[in-house]
Amino acid sequence: MGSSTKKKILVLGGGFAGLEFCRRFKDEDTSIMLVDKKNHHLFQPLLYQVATSGLSAPQIAQPLRGILRGRDQLTTYLDEIQEISLEGKFAKGKNRIYEYDYLVLGLGAKTSYFGNDHWAEHTHGLKTLNDALGIRNHVLRSLEMAEMETDSEKQKRLMTFIVVGGGPTGVEMAGALAELGRHVLNRNFRHIDPKNVRVILVEGSDKILGNYSDPLPASAQKQIEKLGVEVRCGNMVEDIRAGELDVGGETIYAGTIIWGAGVEAVPLTKQLGAPLDRAGRIKVCPDCSIPGHPEAFAIGDIAHLVDTKGKPVPGVSPAALQMAKHISKIIAKEIETGQMRKPEERKAFTYFNKGNMATIGRSKAIAEIGKLKMSGMPAWMAWLVVHLIFLVGFRNRIVVLLDWFYSYINYRRSARIIFE
Amino acid sequence: MGSSTKKKILVLGGGFAGLEFCRRFKDEDTSIMLVDKKNHHLFQPLLYQVATSGLSAPQIAQPLRGILRGRDQLTTYLDEIQEISLEGKFAKGKNRIYEYDYLVLGLGAKTSYFGNDHWAEHTHGLKTLNDALGIRNHVLRSLEMAEMETDSEKQKRLMTFIVVGGGPTGVEMAGALAELGRHVLNRNFRHIDPKNVRVILVEGSDKILGNYSDPLPASAQKQIEKLGVEVRCGNMVEDIRAGELDVGGETIYAGTIIWGAGVEAVPLTKQLGAPLDRAGRIKVCPDCSIPGHPEAFAIGDIAHLVDTKGKPVPGVSPAALQMAKHISKIIAKEIETGQMRKPEERKAFTYFNKGNMATIGRSKAIAEIGKLKMSGMPAWMAWLVVHLIFLVGFRNRIVVLLDWFYSYINYRRSARIIFE
Repeated sequence: MGSSTKKKILVLGGGFAGLEFCRRFKDEDTSIMLVDKKNHHLFQPLLYQVATSGLSAPQIAQPLRGILRGRDQLTTYLDEIQEISLEGKFAKGKNRIYEYDYLVLGLGAKTSYFGNDHWAEHTHGLKTLNDALGIRNHVLRSLEMAEMETDSEKQKRLMTFIVVGGGPTGVEMAGALAELGRHVLNRNFRHIDPKNVRVILVEGSDKILGNYSDPLPASAQKQIEKLGVEVRCGNMVEDIRAGELDVGGETIYAGTIIWGAGVEAVPLTKQLGAPLDRAGRIKVCPDCSIPGHPEAFAIGDIAHLVDTKGKPVPGVSPAALQMAKHISKIIAKEIETGQMRKPEERKAFTYFNKGNMATIGRSKAIAEIGKLKMSGMPAWMAWLVVHLIFLVGFRNRIVVLLDWFYSYINYRRSARIIFE
Repeated sequence: MGSSTKKKILVLGGGFAGLEFCRRFKDEDTSIMLVDKKNHHLFQPLLYQVATSGLSAPQIAQPLRGILRGRDQLTTYLDEIQEISLEGKFAKGKNRIYEYDYLVLGLGAKTSYFGNDHWAEHTHGLKTLNDALGIRNHVLRSLEMAEMETDSEKQKRLMTFIVVGGGPTGVEMAGALAELGRHVLNRNFRHIDPKNVRVILVEGSDKILGNYSDPLPASAQKQIEKLGVEVRCGNMVEDIRAGELDVGGETIYAGTIIWGAGVEAVPLTKQLGAPLDRAGRIKVCPDCSIPGHPEAFAIGDIAHLVDTKGKPVPGVSPAALQMAKHISKIIAKEIETGQMRKPEERKAFTYFNKGNMATIGRSKAIAEIGKLKMSGMPAWMAWLVVHLIFLVGFRNRIVVLLDWFYSYINYRRSARIIFE
């Protein structure tokens, strides 16, 4: 459908960065190609809810075609990118080649084991829908096996869950697992008591949620300990084997080990010849373009940028959204004027931090908005409201609301299904 | 927890039959064991909605432990039964042995290929949650591939779906697939038009929904043809190969072949030494007990019975529920009086047919309630109401209602997610 005079914009990745770009960019005179290996956009901040049976997969995943329905200048391709040539201005997928005038690279990050890739086979990551459904299956199955188990040592091990990483992902996951045992599965079993589920949160630094100002990390630790979670800070994981984790010179035995400790950029960045940081992220110019390639931008978790305020832009969804908006303006203007500018002539990106919040469990959270610090119920209410507003565009907003409301009232969870 | 004086009731299968028995039977002085290889009860009548992205899996599947929560005399086991000894009064699972005083056999049916088991690898069944998610993935992926395909023959093939079997399962499936193409995916693609999706419904007998009185089958055919479905009656399937189906001397090429033509009892019935019909179902006594074993009952799709009215009890969920209620009374009374009766002394089962209804698509259905025959919008409204009422006990009733309501208004579907 694209005529040869139309500028071609190739968007790689339908995550927060890529999708937001597509939504923002509505120039009629361009041909936009969006390529993702998945057919859906994933609302990653709620992935832990799928993992702990609180939400179903479709409630946090929305088909890209559906979101971008009726946008005739935009074509969505289900394809996996295998090579990008910045020189040749094309990307090669499994199915076809995509040529471009402008490139928007938003392929995001994947779980990082900091060089210990063999740990992957003994742990569950928490980045994809498959990861989340895998954890759900594994956790529910472990409890079923514990109910059958007659050896009390084995039973204890099946009921022990380790979460590695004291960032928001790990904290939310550990809190939700503890609630699952303490409240949700109450009176569901006859031979075990799910209240005895043991959840251990392992963090290498000296506190959890360390990116928050004091006293919020300490408050978060107090709140999560109230749920029965054991918090172990100050020691890095030494080794992980099947059902075993070494930390601080001790070995912990656990039926489930969840890895939420770190991410790195997708491996494709290594092919680009662009400068990378230690996590494989592209060190972009202040305008988010890739050095030497003003027509190619990297945004979201795949980009490394110290912004105009002198601070590194964090790998969070608001940053990805803001970057997408920023470059959509740049590109729209240049296409309109027919003139590609130099990176230094373009506006530099500045991250506006609207605040951070992390949930721990029902009525338990911390939030930091500018100088305002909250914890407990008020922070949790704020978290709830923000996440509901954030789900705008997701068709099942009301359903998510109802599900949460239902869970809040009676501690049930709607998605406790083990798939075969 | 069970003391030795308590009677042990073993319930195999948590489908409509087995679960209803557990719900009905609330004698405090018994020990009930419910064994299922899945952790959830499945609302099978809506499985086609999961397959066609209308509902998410957890919306029609509910954890057995959750449903039976707090029933302290009842223990649920996630286990797969491998052997049943009617003589020894025990069943052997993969994990343990279950001894019983009374047996309730409700293991149901599985897809039958009428002796052509090799067709299974080229078709999708529609009996389990996995089947439904498999169809959803396959259908969505076929359309994604068609969007990429440059060879128009291959493209057509990817957009052709065959449904075998003109019973309610096949009709509902074919109708929902046609709607998916015609309405739901409208304006989602750029290189294909999902309106051109070809859905072919193949039925061996001379009409679809042949168990309804005339003129309902003809009305159903007219309604489904309005949706664009091609109906081919009067010829049995001759052969199925990968992407190819022979019927009436012709070969049809299709990217997807769904098999909804028949069911048979699970293979375990063959070990019992009990009389079986051609579909492997146990020919039970009028009270639903297995001949020669008054302590063992078979109910639901696994049982074959000509009831007191002289008609074979159909393999539908209302029949399973009624049988469960029937035998729960028998067993409760005998445990109360401490005396096991002979089958001929017990009340015989009579199936009460409250009516049948099959849905075809939005505003399209047929219904037969006693002498009342309905089709089109009134039948569809009746179908909708009955299925919503039927979902009682399912915690997500409201959510299902909302989803349907939403779909009804704007032809969207909430679960268009391809899993990896």
